[in-house]
Amino acid sequence: MPASYAYLGPEGTFTEVALRTLPEAATRQLIPYVSVQSALDAVRAGEAEAAFVPIENSVEGGITTTLDALVAGTPLMIYREVLLSITFALLARPGTDLSDIKTVSAHPAAQPQVRNWLKANLPDAVWESAASNADAARLVQEGRYDAAFAGEFAAARYGLTALETGIHDAENAQTRFVLVGRPARPAAPTGADKTSVVLWQRDDHPGGLRDLLGEFATRGVNLMLLQSRPTGAGIGNYCFCIDAEGHITDRRMAEALMGLKRICREVRFLGSYPRAEMSAADVPAPLPGTSDGEFMAASDWVARCQDGRF
Amino acid sequence: MPASYAYLGPEGTFTEVALRTLPEAATRQLIPYVSVQSALDAVRAGEAEAAFVPIENSVEGGITTTLDALVAGTPLMIYREVLLSITFALLARPGTDLSDIKTVSAHPAAQPQVRNWLKANLPDAVWESAASNADAARLVQEGRYDAAFAGEFAAARYGLTALETGIHDAENAQTRFVLVGRPARPAAPTGADKTSVVLWQRDDHPGGLRDLLGEFATRGVNLMLLQSRPTGAGIGNYCFCIDAEGHITDRRMAEALMGLKRICREVRFLGSYPRAEMSAADVPAPLPGTSDGEFMAASDWVARCQDGRF
Amino acid sequence: MPASYAYLGPEGTFTEVALRTLPEAATRQLIPYVSVQSALDAVRAGEAEAAFVPIENSVEGGITTTLDALVAGTPLMIYREVLLSITFALLARPGTDLSDIKTVSAHPAAQPQVRNWLKANLPDAVWESAASNADAARLVQEGRYDAAFAGEFAAARYGLTALETGIHDAENAQTRFVLVGRPARPAAPTGADKTSVVLWQRDDHPGGLRDLLGEFATRGVNLMLLQSRPTGAGIGNYCFCIDAEGHITDRRMAEALMGLKRICREVRFLGSYPRAEMSAADVPAPLPGTSDGEFMAASDWVARCQDGRF
Amino acid sequence: MPASYAYLGPEGTFTEVALRTLPEAATRQLIPYVSVQSALDAVRAGEAEAAFVPIENSVEGGITTTLDALVAGTPLMIYREVLLSITFALLARPGTDLSDIKTVSAHPAAQPQVRNWLKANLPDAVWESAASNADAARLVQEGRYDAAFAGEFAAARYGLTALETGIHDAENAQTRFVLVGRPARPAAPTGADKTSVVLWQRDDHPGGLRDLLGEFATRGVNLMLLQSRPTGAGIGNYCFCIDAEGHITDRRMAEALMGLKRICREVRFLGSYPRAEMSAADVPAPLPGTSDGEFMAASDWVARCQDGRF
Repeated sequence: MPASYAYLGPEGTFTEVALRTLPEAATRQLIPYVSVQSALDAVRAGEAEAAFVPIENSVEGGITTTLDALVAGTPLMIYREVLLSITFALLARPGTDLSDIKTVSAHPAAQPQVRNWLKANLPDAVWESAASNADAARLVQEGRYDAAFAGEFAAARYGLTALETGIHDAENAQTRFVLVGRPARPAAPTGADKTSVVLWQRDDHPGGLRDLLGEFATRGVNLMLLQSRPTGAGIGNYCFCIDAEGHITDRRMAEALMGLKRICREVRFLGSYPRAEMSAADVPAPLPGTSDGEFMAASDWVARCQDGRF
Repeated sequence: MPASYAYLGPEGTFTEVALRTLPEAATRQLIPYVSVQSALDAVRAGEAEAAFVPIENSVEGGITTTLDALVAGTPLMIYREVLLSITFALLARPGTDLSDIKTVSAHPAAQPQVRNWLKANLPDAVWESAASNADAARLVQEGRYDAAFAGEFAAARYGLTALETGIHDAENAQTRFVLVGRPARPAAPTGADKTSVVLWQRDDHPGGLRDLLGEFATRGVNLMLLQSRPTGAGIGNYCFCIDAEGHITDRRMAEALMGLKRICREVRFLGSYPRAEMSAADVPAPLPGTSDGEFMAASDWVARCQDGRF
Repeated sequence: MPASYAYLGPEGTFTEVALRTLPEAATRQLIPYVSVQSALDAVRAGEAEAAFVPIENSVEGGITTTLDALVAGTPLMIYREVLLSITFALLARPGTDLSDIKTVSAHPAAQPQVRNWLKANLPDAVWESAASNADAARLVQEGRYDAAFAGEFAAARYGLTALETGIHDAENAQTRFVLVGRPARPAAPTGADKTSVVLWQRDDHPGGLRDLLGEFATRGVNLMLLQSRPTGAGIGNYCFCIDAEGHITDRRMAEALMGLKRICREVRFLGSYPRAEMSAADVPAPLPGTSDGEFMAASDWVARCQDGRF
Repeated sequence: MPASYAYLGPEGTFTEVALRTLPEAATRQLIPYVSVQSALDAVRAGEAEAAFVPIENSVEGGITTTLDALVAGTPLMIYREVLLSITFALLARPGTDLSDIKTVSAHPAAQPQVRNWLKANLPDAVWESAASNADAARLVQEGRYDAAFAGEFAAARYGLTALETGIHDAENAQTRFVLVGRPARPAAPTGADKTSVVLWQRDDHPGGLRDLLGEFATRGVNLMLLQSRPTGAGIGNYCFCIDAEGHITDRRMAEALMGLKRICREVRFLGSYPRAEMSAADVPAPLPGTSDGEFMAASDWVARCQDGRF
């Protein structure tokens, strides 16, 4: 049996398309799961080598079901991320004309991306929500609705035709997906990496969160995402999911994480992995005093002082 | 026509129950709306005096649809908040026995609160999602499902009986609701108040968010909620919805907000209002140096120095 | 009797020269005092309108006798500052040749400035300390020593000739003097001002001094001098004399001072006055978010929010 | 030839007394030098094993000549510190009565400590400054003055009698002395140690000094002394002599020093050595999250994360 990747199904969604952009996906069995939680649990249970799930998009921000499933349960680790631009096609049965369309269907999450297009082109069409965009396409195939918004790639699978492609109300609509596995040595740094952690504060006091973020700032580490999630201890109790620029083997990141570990009640490491949107050549130089070389020089200097050689 | 309050419908939900705990609700016409956005837009359009919507709960954290509807569009203001403990009743048609129940229904958000109870008491029941808990009750009344999880208060409205009450997997499950209206002079401080704002950073750099939070910390203002929300400018671009302890007429809060206004690209004030969970007697004393009296004494001192009287 | 200025005597020193650069000195009686303390006490006692004393130089830093005399006793205020470049002349009786000089005299503070010159030009001359450079000149006049290092201006007063002028080992040797009077309304801001204060910490804890300085930094106020001085409460107990860029009527400075007043055990305001080394045209623009205009706009915004007009 | 210690002479001063409290002084040749600079230069030149000099007192604060001599020149290191309470005896020739005393002498630094006593007991005595207290005693021995203020220990050496002992206007008058040698491995930590460093800022900007101090504060390191000293680059240019609680082998101190090394233009390590005023039992526990154990646990945790074992 080949190693398998679990992913948030069903087949024919943007998640599957994003997953297939990973070269290693070609050599794995790809198994759709009905929920993020079940896909991650398959990894925890050893049924899948890794799970591929959406974690952030430009409309919703951090995807809470994914974050919550990473925050609780046995530790998992993000291996990779994939960034996918989200544009929709309007799919219909062959022979359908735009003027024939009375009902349209898609997952509710698609609505913000197609609302303006609908208003301009099909102002009278009735919206019918579906469990997924792929499911909407299936229902169109079955004749239940006239057209579906889905990825263009779903047309072939469901025997439909794309009447229009590239539909997107919001420019830059993107979804970020992650490949999640059991803890392992993180991928080697590429020079354009990010590190994900979850922080639980020791107690709540003025300046508490400021001080947590100060552990990053003091070492010149930039934050990319800060998403608060309920801890389950009652309303108003939050932990913080954070993405920061850099790799855990970068000295500045390692020292920042050490600082957090010392002052937080708990820190969960979620992985260091290459940034999907950027290569090393595009990453700005670290702030003065925060490069690996400067960290090592400073460490050497302290060691020499400790040893009386200065 | 009496003044009206819009609220997130349908009738018979926890939202309506929470709304009715407000004394002023008795003198208003209460009108259910199909979405938070439409309820808030009714206020913006002048069709309703105020809107009552959920904004945070102990399972989901900040409720993103509400936050997003407050963050964008013409400014609105939070007048009041209500905190409601969420426990479910299992409602069925009179004469139904627990052993008769094959299908149960509720809004998907109810699931985390009843999952353990279901596993223990109705392990074989099939779950059917409904658009709201009230809708689930209606569908039970119509005979489509056998039982619904909803607030006990929904039983009478739909001619159902509560087979069990007080169902709640998570202790301390609570939802926070807010009454939102057009900008107005905030309610007078009670000594136990909170202030809500939205912050947009001027630019992104290491320490940027730490410095924003430092404006609160420097003045001894404690944070209660920090929820990042996408700005719409593409993935990774966030604004921050913040609840902080204190009233905008508190000197420490006023100075913190001034500081934020100076360094942020934009600050949206969402209101100062009494804290639902706490009265003035329970609020801890401000940190040394941050009381109104100390602020005023310091201001007087600077004025005397500016005037040469010291 | 004309109003009088006390100054650190005797006559014929750099202090007197610096004092005479002030236009108003021409209309006052200038009275030398034997010490900084006695000159300041003359002001406190109402015997002099103001006192003119050195407060900082490029070799010693803050001049501790002056700082201590300002820190203790009834409050005084700095009205003006004067910056004087310090170069020495070698003064001898007329007819003296360089080769005749066996003994040289000056105040010990002059030594670091003439040491290299002596080594190069009079390697065998014996150094004799005097109570002041002017006194050294007097002793040369009386024939006790062969030559004195003093300001060139002292030659005429003591009937001496300058064998050499412009002697200065250190480039940029300067002394800063201040005109100190009783508390009064500070001079109007010129756009290039400084503010002097003394801070006493409330208690001693990690980060305590950092937090004091943070009150300046949060408002974008730059520090020019930080000089610790013993409080008199035993070894290791210090207060801090601080010069900061800006005027107490600048909004950022006023708010920083308010912040310090709130968290310090005591703050003593020592005045806001024009910077001697710089005019408004040379002062860099304030950091973004810290100009008076931005402070006022932020204050207006908070006032509008407090009033419900936003 | 036995190893020798240089010290700030002459013989018979408080410095010598303090030096003799060190057990190792009994086995060294103790050689008085005319200045702190010359004593330290003797160490630099290899003529003395170490030098013993005053570095801080409760009246003057940091002793600038000592600090300046440590800041410039080839690096030296503080090995030990000694704290001495300073009280004076009034010494006179045998047979002298208090009423016979018309002139008193001492080093000017003694004046603040005996001024009140003089006013109360010898209001008409004329003050004559001497080069040192020991020198004043010698001049009394020679009959030039009637009495000298000096340490009681000086009586025997100069054949004088103490008419009064324990004279001290200020309670808690103390002087701190240090034994300074060439760089060597610092003494092992005792649990009650201090570390001395000199910092030069990279550039001058609002918040610059705050950020330097933040390197200590972030790691919970408390400061004991901050003394600014001119850099020699012109008025207003300062470096900072800092004493901080803890030993360079403490993890929190090592990390703070590394942070400073990275952001400062230059850091000079001046040594880690036992605190004279306190033993390990009296040192308060480190702040939560800053003990060696917590640093090591955090470092281990990061190493495990880097290795995929978490």
